[in-house]
Amino acid sequence: MAVPSVSFSITVRLDVPASSQTVGEITTAVGKLGAVVTALDVAESHAGRLVLDMTCLCVDGEQAQAIAETLRHMPDFVVRRVSDRVFLLHLGGKIEVASKVALRTRDDLSMAYTPGVARVCLAIADRPDDARRLTVKRNSVAVVSDGSAVLGLGNIGPTAAIPVMEGKAALFKRFADIDAWPICLDTQDVDEIVRTVTLLAPVFGGINLEDIAAPRCFEIERRLRGLLDIPVFHDDQHGTAIVVLAALTNALRIVGRSLGSVRIVTSGAGAAGTAILRLLLRAGAGRAGGSVIASDIGGIISPARDDLDDNGRWICTHTNPGRIIGTLRDALIGADVFIGVSAPGILTGADIATMADDAIVFALANPDPEVDPADARLYATVVATGRSDEPNQINNVLAFPGVFRGLLDSRARDITEDMLLAAAHALAAVLREDEINPLHIVPSVFDERVMPAVAEAVSAVAVSAVAVSAVAVSAVAAGTEAAGTEAAGTEAVSAVAVGTVARQALADQP
Amino acid sequence: MAVPSVSFSITVRLDVPASSQTVGEITTAVGKLGAVVTALDVAESHAGRLVLDMTCLCVDGEQAQAIAETLRHMPDFVVRRVSDRVFLLHLGGKIEVASKVALRTRDDLSMAYTPGVARVCLAIADRPDDARRLTVKRNSVAVVSDGSAVLGLGNIGPTAAIPVMEGKAALFKRFADIDAWPICLDTQDVDEIVRTVTLLAPVFGGINLEDIAAPRCFEIERRLRGLLDIPVFHDDQHGTAIVVLAALTNALRIVGRSLGSVRIVTSGAGAAGTAILRLLLRAGAGRAGGSVIASDIGGIISPARDDLDDNGRWICTHTNPGRIIGTLRDALIGADVFIGVSAPGILTGADIATMADDAIVFALANPDPEVDPADARLYATVVATGRSDEPNQINNVLAFPGVFRGLLDSRARDITEDMLLAAAHALAAVLREDEINPLHIVPSVFDERVMPAVAEAVSAVAVSAVAVSAVAVSAVAAGTEAAGTEAAGTEAVSAVAVGTVARQALADQP
Repeated sequence: MAVPSVSFSITVRLDVPASSQTVGEITTAVGKLGAVVTALDVAESHAGRLVLDMTCLCVDGEQAQAIAETLRHMPDFVVRRVSDRVFLLHLGGKIEVASKVALRTRDDLSMAYTPGVARVCLAIADRPDDARRLTVKRNSVAVVSDGSAVLGLGNIGPTAAIPVMEGKAALFKRFADIDAWPICLDTQDVDEIVRTVTLLAPVFGGINLEDIAAPRCFEIERRLRGLLDIPVFHDDQHGTAIVVLAALTNALRIVGRSLGSVRIVTSGAGAAGTAILRLLLRAGAGRAGGSVIASDIGGIISPARDDLDDNGRWICTHTNPGRIIGTLRDALIGADVFIGVSAPGILTGADIATMADDAIVFALANPDPEVDPADARLYATVVATGRSDEPNQINNVLAFPGVFRGLLDSRARDITEDMLLAAAHALAAVLREDEINPLHIVPSVFDERVMPAVAEAVSAVAVSAVAVSAVAVSAVAAGTEAAGTEAAGTEAVSAVAVGTVARQALADQP
Repeated sequence: MAVPSVSFSITVRLDVPASSQTVGEITTAVGKLGAVVTALDVAESHAGRLVLDMTCLCVDGEQAQAIAETLRHMPDFVVRRVSDRVFLLHLGGKIEVASKVALRTRDDLSMAYTPGVARVCLAIADRPDDARRLTVKRNSVAVVSDGSAVLGLGNIGPTAAIPVMEGKAALFKRFADIDAWPICLDTQDVDEIVRTVTLLAPVFGGINLEDIAAPRCFEIERRLRGLLDIPVFHDDQHGTAIVVLAALTNALRIVGRSLGSVRIVTSGAGAAGTAILRLLLRAGAGRAGGSVIASDIGGIISPARDDLDDNGRWICTHTNPGRIIGTLRDALIGADVFIGVSAPGILTGADIATMADDAIVFALANPDPEVDPADARLYATVVATGRSDEPNQINNVLAFPGVFRGLLDSRARDITEDMLLAAAHALAAVLREDEINPLHIVPSVFDERVMPAVAEAVSAVAVSAVAVSAVAVSAVAAGTEAAGTEAAGTEAVSAVAVGTVARQALADQP
């Protein structure tokens, strides 16, 4: 299934004869090896010689290497340098810290730093919640990993995990204007991770757990939620679950079925698999004549299994009401929906053929799906994967930016299943009826409707949750609106003032 | 000594009669209360009424309050809103995270995030030191505080400390293009702080400890230095010591004396006081006929004292060779240099008068110095304070940006007293002979020569230290230069490549 991709793109600087055949020789040589030339730029031109930058997309690193070797051995060619565009992009890191305040003059320093800053510190000491207005906590998220389950690479440790966490921070900024900072912890001990995140929480408005192996991730999340007054989200669990539920919602619209009435089979009971099951059940799966059957490497999860951990037992209690035993293949016969978050190539087209008519297949193992999507499409009506080079990519970028935007904007102190559900439904609803088709069940990550829709849905649940717990949110919301209206058109003035004036005015601030 | 300052600046929105007397009435009323009007802007103009934004500098918050009250009671005046400019500047925080890479297309995502990022992770897993090239670790510093000794405000805790740490991060960016992130820890336990900083170190290229109370800060710094392979700097100690030594070096040039020959008396044996003593001794103080005598709240530190902790005993062993006993005032008689990092107003002009001719007085207690600088100037040749509204401000911003720039650029794994010394001498040498005078012993924080001079000095010591420990730094440095020259003029190409090519090429990278 591998195709030449920008993820394996190289630029080769070549010193070559200035002949009319040269370009043809290069593109032919590269093409023969299976790569795709995307650019040829002349860097220097001399009498009889040219210096060219040839950029091509490769299938993998070995092919890139073979291209360099082949060019090196072409008559009269000199390979000056081979550059890997992905490494080039990573040189020096992908994120930076920027100052939002001008520091041009001594007065600027006096206001942003000592002595002016002291009053802001005292205001926060007096009322700690003001940190959510007067500091970066207003908009900051810690992207926390212990490097134990990084992408599909396994336990590569905290330092090797930095590029992923940094990339995540860049995505937070790009898609939701959130200031996220990578926290890569040099421990894989649950107690230490929980304690460390608790200790560094003051400066953050939310915690995004990332690439922490199951089952540790469940305990870490649960304990942190109990300890912290800021929301704790585990993207591998909740982000994936939101996008899967949204995609399934739209896929079911195509086949004209309801979530409660279909037979759903899942494969994989790790972080993502468990979270998907929880959210599906919460959304009503299995409640209207349908069923949910989960499987893992040991087959269908049922009371007959004696190898289940706490998590497995939870799944066992809440799924498979018919107590079916057997393999994933057994479960799949006659099923309406397959959702895999497990391992590559465990199913064939023939297995998909055993499913019911109008089958829906989400083969999300990355980078290689549970079943070849081309084979699956022969027998299923809707097929989705985690791959960017296939239609219907189940991509967490559709969820986490909007979820945290909503949490931060509503100053939420925790995150609930109702918020995840609202996010999934809002994401599904981004696509209008006429935009949905079997090759388009989720919006593009670049669809500008996505983030605001998800944020608004999460924020609405957060605010109504607070209202239920009898805090005077309505007053705050009204104040916010009034302040916003009144402040419109003025830049230099805001309702934040000195002493008691400041206290009163701060209460009116959004 | 208080003067109206931008640190207490307010903007009052007034709805007033459109009369020719109005402006005069406002400025007179504000002036009578001791504040200074700096701006009057018309926001709206109606028949017979004006809406004005009046901005003024106040001495303190009470004065600001009094101004608002006075204006409120003036006939036919309506105060619409009072804004505190410092709070206004802090709304939403002072720093943000920015993405250095474009994320416009799916290809961009594939390179900065999955699947492309996986190869970068594997490269770092293979050779962890590459994190210093391929991630934000190249340029990142953690600004770590437990909120136990914030500015002069005392133990206000981690949340109230955020504005200071954030301000520090903004300064790091402004003055040295360093990406610093505030880490405000919700514990004041030494073991927990040490462990937490150790666990979150992977993503940082350096640790800047800040506003941690003595004597805990000494142990935290010592233990972290032993545990981490990145430099650990405590700005309150080392930053202050560097700037004090630089300022003293130039002050001594004015009075034509050498550091080793003068009698130095210090007041304060906390973090800053101790670090200043250490660096002065390292630089040669007391070695050429002069002496160093330290004092604290209990008087001169001498073997006669029975109230000394570990730190006090170290000071006792290394200073006061004549074993003089008595008070600070006793020590001051005939001294050439006074350096105070202790408490406000503990000395008078009369005390300074007892010092030797051409006395040098550094009264650095903040915001109120040990002695009124105007009084001190009557009897001393050179007077310095920590205040921005006095000449000769001893400001750490002169040191820490360049120190960390030098540490990061040289990929230093630790920080040594030789580096601090080199930084101090480089800072002093920024001012040419003809620029130095009693009111100008240190450069302005905005002097663009400062950061590069300090960085280069620190970097030179770091690189030579590595050379001494027999690592092949020369080869790296040579490779760096070669790569730099060759790469000049090309943008798309660099020496980072795929597979074995990548390994070789990375070795050539700066």
